[in-house]
Amino acid sequence: MRIGIIGGTGGIGEGMALRMAPFHTVVIGSRETEKAQVCCRECEEILMKKGLSCSLIGKTNQETVDFADLVILAIPFKFLVPTLQELKGLEGKVVVSPVNPIEKTGEYFSYVPPSEGSAALLARKLLPEGTQLCLAFNNIAANRWRDLDDPLEYSVAVCGDDMGAKRKVMELAAGTPHLRPLDAGPLAVAPLVESLTPLLLNLGRFNRMKDVGVRFF
Amino acid sequence: MRIGIIGGTGGIGEGMALRMAPFHTVVIGSRETEKAQVCCRECEEILMKKGLSCSLIGKTNQETVDFADLVILAIPFKFLVPTLQELKGLEGKVVVSPVNPIEKTGEYFSYVPPSEGSAALLARKLLPEGTQLCLAFNNIAANRWRDLDDPLEYSVAVCGDDMGAKRKVMELAAGTPHLRPLDAGPLAVAPLVESLTPLLLNLGRFNRMKDVGVRFF
Repeated sequence: MRIGIIGGTGGIGEGMALRMAPFHTVVIGSRETEKAQVCCRECEEILMKKGLSCSLIGKTNQETVDFADLVILAIPFKFLVPTLQELKGLEGKVVVSPVNPIEKTGEYFSYVPPSEGSAALLARKLLPEGTQLCLAFNNIAANRWRDLDDPLEYSVAVCGDDMGAKRKVMELAAGTPHLRPLDAGPLAVAPLVESLTPLLLNLGRFNRMKDVGVRFF
Repeated sequence: MRIGIIGGTGGIGEGMALRMAPFHTVVIGSRETEKAQVCCRECEEILMKKGLSCSLIGKTNQETVDFADLVILAIPFKFLVPTLQELKGLEGKVVVSPVNPIEKTGEYFSYVPPSEGSAALLARKLLPEGTQLCLAFNNIAANRWRDLDDPLEYSVAVCGDDMGAKRKVMELAAGTPHLRPLDAGPLAVAPLVESLTPLLLNLGRFNRMKDVGVRFF
């Protein structure tokens, strides 16, 4: 499976690339090709030091879409609308949203979804018909993705309305040691997964914990 | 500390009584005294079989408030308004809301908060001034509370605006083996904790898991 990571040079995108590149062909997408290629070289170096070979390519975001079977939107919420308005050719592809609409009000983080109800539902509205949209990987901090010594023993809640696409995303998570994918239901319940992230951020803040993760059991 | 459990004859209330009675004086409140007393005798029997002594009293909900220092509202969301309109004398007490406004739509559970934003914020509106309201214990299934062979190794997110009250609730959780209380911030972020419960219910439903629990780490 060819994985494309839109916004792949950001913290979470780069972390995902590091974790997935030993097992899949991963394309890191960026607004600038050169930035994506620099990020690829850095990732390759980190993985080589760990004795891991990988297949990483740096491209523009549009080229990333064109090349990949599964496209991950590793972008902040504020870039969701402009990015999806720009990208073409997502029909027929599996698109994964790990996007969380979060705001910080004084001392704490809140969930501030758009009028569609969640970032994932806003994405669905913007994506062309025939795109197989799933939500996944919303609740893992960038630092946890990037710290290859962390065994990543987290639960990954996956939402989606297309069972085939959901199965692909769950397989991708299950093949990323040691994530544990769980079916969280249809896209309609995306707010329940997205709003877990500000809770984790608040728990970190108020208990002096770093990059709080979650396990369902 | 004298713990009063409003709605203590329900599944979650009875489970909490079983877990807390070996360590605290626990009053089980019900609309009918006799029902509360029957529940106490049943709990005592279960605990005795485990070799645990306990201090359990059955009373009406109002007598439970009058007797307790810390009052837990172990009631379904639909009873929150009538119950709080009826009860008197909550001023100066610590009140704990484990209430989740949840609805089932077809195949899945959704978070459907009142216009105040959450069950806890609705409770705050109804409670007299000087009541020290906290939110806690929202994410533990009744069956997990009641199964004394389950070590209850869950995280408990606690919200509240009064640090003294929050500390008391966190101590109560920490003294209930083997719960791990975590400060989740002010009452304003109660929706983030309450909405975790429908997510857990959906995870249970779509992955054939029973009474899904949560750990933050």
